[in-house]
Amino acid sequence: MDMLDVIKDISQVSPSRIIYCVLDGLGGLPHPESGQTELETARTPNLNRLAEQGISGLIDPVCPGITPGSAPGHLGLFGYDPLKYKIGRGVLEATGIDFEMQRGDVATRGNFCTVDDAGNITDRRAGRIDNAKCAELCQLLDGMVIGKTTVIVCPVKEHRFIAVFRGGKLDPAVSDSDPQQTGVPAKAVTALSPAAAATATIANEFIAQASVKLRGHHPANMLLLRGFSCCPDFPKISEVYRLKPSAISVYPMYRGLARLLGMEILETGTDIASEFGTLERHYADYDFLFMHIKWTDSAGEDGDFERKVSVIEEFDRNLGSLTTGEDDVIVVTGDHSTPARLKGHSWHPVPVLLSSRWCRPDGIAEFSERSCRQGGLGRLPATRIMPLAMAHALKLVKYGA
Amino acid sequence: MDMLDVIKDISQVSPSRIIYCVLDGLGGLPHPESGQTELETARTPNLNRLAEQGISGLIDPVCPGITPGSAPGHLGLFGYDPLKYKIGRGVLEATGIDFEMQRGDVATRGNFCTVDDAGNITDRRAGRIDNAKCAELCQLLDGMVIGKTTVIVCPVKEHRFIAVFRGGKLDPAVSDSDPQQTGVPAKAVTALSPAAAATATIANEFIAQASVKLRGHHPANMLLLRGFSCCPDFPKISEVYRLKPSAISVYPMYRGLARLLGMEILETGTDIASEFGTLERHYADYDFLFMHIKWTDSAGEDGDFERKVSVIEEFDRNLGSLTTGEDDVIVVTGDHSTPARLKGHSWHPVPVLLSSRWCRPDGIAEFSERSCRQGGLGRLPATRIMPLAMAHALKLVKYGA
Repeated sequence: MDMLDVIKDISQVSPSRIIYCVLDGLGGLPHPESGQTELETARTPNLNRLAEQGISGLIDPVCPGITPGSAPGHLGLFGYDPLKYKIGRGVLEATGIDFEMQRGDVATRGNFCTVDDAGNITDRRAGRIDNAKCAELCQLLDGMVIGKTTVIVCPVKEHRFIAVFRGGKLDPAVSDSDPQQTGVPAKAVTALSPAAAATATIANEFIAQASVKLRGHHPANMLLLRGFSCCPDFPKISEVYRLKPSAISVYPMYRGLARLLGMEILETGTDIASEFGTLERHYADYDFLFMHIKWTDSAGEDGDFERKVSVIEEFDRNLGSLTTGEDDVIVVTGDHSTPARLKGHSWHPVPVLLSSRWCRPDGIAEFSERSCRQGGLGRLPATRIMPLAMAHALKLVKYGA
Repeated sequence: MDMLDVIKDISQVSPSRIIYCVLDGLGGLPHPESGQTELETARTPNLNRLAEQGISGLIDPVCPGITPGSAPGHLGLFGYDPLKYKIGRGVLEATGIDFEMQRGDVATRGNFCTVDDAGNITDRRAGRIDNAKCAELCQLLDGMVIGKTTVIVCPVKEHRFIAVFRGGKLDPAVSDSDPQQTGVPAKAVTALSPAAAATATIANEFIAQASVKLRGHHPANMLLLRGFSCCPDFPKISEVYRLKPSAISVYPMYRGLARLLGMEILETGTDIASEFGTLERHYADYDFLFMHIKWTDSAGEDGDFERKVSVIEEFDRNLGSLTTGEDDVIVVTGDHSTPARLKGHSWHPVPVLLSSRWCRPDGIAEFSERSCRQGGLGRLPATRIMPLAMAHALKLVKYGA
């Protein structure tokens, strides 16, 4: 039974708002010297106040022990079981640059890369060429026609681009050309099901022609494709929750994900203050405002404990001046943990707080991994947070007679 | 969605090891005088140290309230949902004595028993005849041919044996002949599905002929069969987790279970010290070492509180001299509870500790039912432990992009 079907039947419109703050990679591990995690180290008077007014807990984004990528991490937070709802990497990348996919399109994520004379990859990211160079190379490759299929190539950032195959009978069940390692040549794209044979041929033909065009453009003298996928047909947030949803995110992938779920993407700047500014400006226009803060994760990935602490503190300061309605629900959590000590996503459960006038108090007055373990929400799957937010916003009617 | 499929996609080989210690029937109930369980009563400095370095919790082997047998208890611990993955008792017994089952075989567990002149069972275990007598009687019955089926009879221990039906079209969907009580006669084997009618007839014919042959062998003058089953085709631990797994167990059933999951069975002695010796000797050869300690359960079954305490203390002493690598993960738990007060398996959740350098500390410095209730793992299904062990051993890559 999909919980979304249950929610769909009992959701109702109400005047309250849900402010859904996702600090990417929020959860951490203790610093070896202080014994305190990043969140425990940060001075967070405003988060602590929200924790005191609300209830806290720990969430498992997918399942205990499973380290989620960004897409499953976010899908869970929005109530979509990440083991059921899957998004291909190509689609995620495409939607993240506002590319409008059409029915039947197959999108891939591309990297420009460097190969040596023998054709072996020496740098999977082509020395991270700049955005201008990426755009120039994409223009060179864009619009190639192979049989009934046109290949649309658009720049993303640095060495990254998307290649979208449009027209003809396409099937995304083909393998990556990216071997995810250096010292070897790019792999041929192969069909993973008989119906995808033609798509594999087209992809290989595109790669062959593109490699000729790129020949003189060292270090970006070759390309790698991965994550062939077509647009999933997920139920929209407006349908499931009867919410008018919006998303604030500096980074494209999270905007892309939000768009797939039917959220409206709000223009914003490039820092936390701008994101809060956008939130304040559009507060009256939506009853669900998702705000994504990327830099907790970036700092964690870089192993920079102190910077992650600073990002959390900066978020907390901005939170202090946020004005919300008395019936609103504020959720603060992360899509996964990114402990600085591990320099990457991890499986550790993620602190969550939900603040609302309708919370049953749990005696927790601090927002940290330690205190969340004692919190009134207990430990629960990430998918439970949306129903709880909806409930506290009085947006769910009784289930059953 | 089977979690094993998810794990299979994201597991990777890494240099660390997982040491998986299962103290059979570990969980207990408080002694009426002291108010302390067996584990709480035992002096366990080494387990306490592991708990302090790691995280603890309580597991439900199958589901809250469900008392598991040994097979579902262990399957859950290895990540196989015991409500989905089922092993017949006959198969378990057969694999436990290194009997190599063939495709199409139907194995049963047999008891020699005592019946009176009226044919009513007076002792379901025939006074626990010795192993030599059991072997002699099995030889008497072995090799009987009924139509196209040969019945292979092999001794297990004391009154226990296996009867494996081989050849012809067999179907294991038949009822037990063992009524599991005295004062009544053995039951006729009946088909539980139409396709199993012939198998029921063959089984009854075997029982009839065997009872004639056993007539003069009081107290073992009859036999009881149960757990008709054929070999399940479970995914192997090496396939799912990419581990090289081994098992150390004094008792055959647990070796049989481990073999079904593809573990290599290591030669060992007959006490806890020998098992630890085996572990040390083979430490370098495997990256998953399952050690099964039976005597916590035996003591619990006997209602011997003090002996169960002693077994736990003996385990703890041996644990103290175990040397492991810095990246290793040690798990200590049980397959179910066997409180001495109940003299049998029970449904109470089982203490678990997982020690690794990548644990998020939970402030617990003791291994007991009481402290595990406050532990960082919370209360979770047994099937979650393997993914968590894999994660802490850095043997799982990210799920999804």
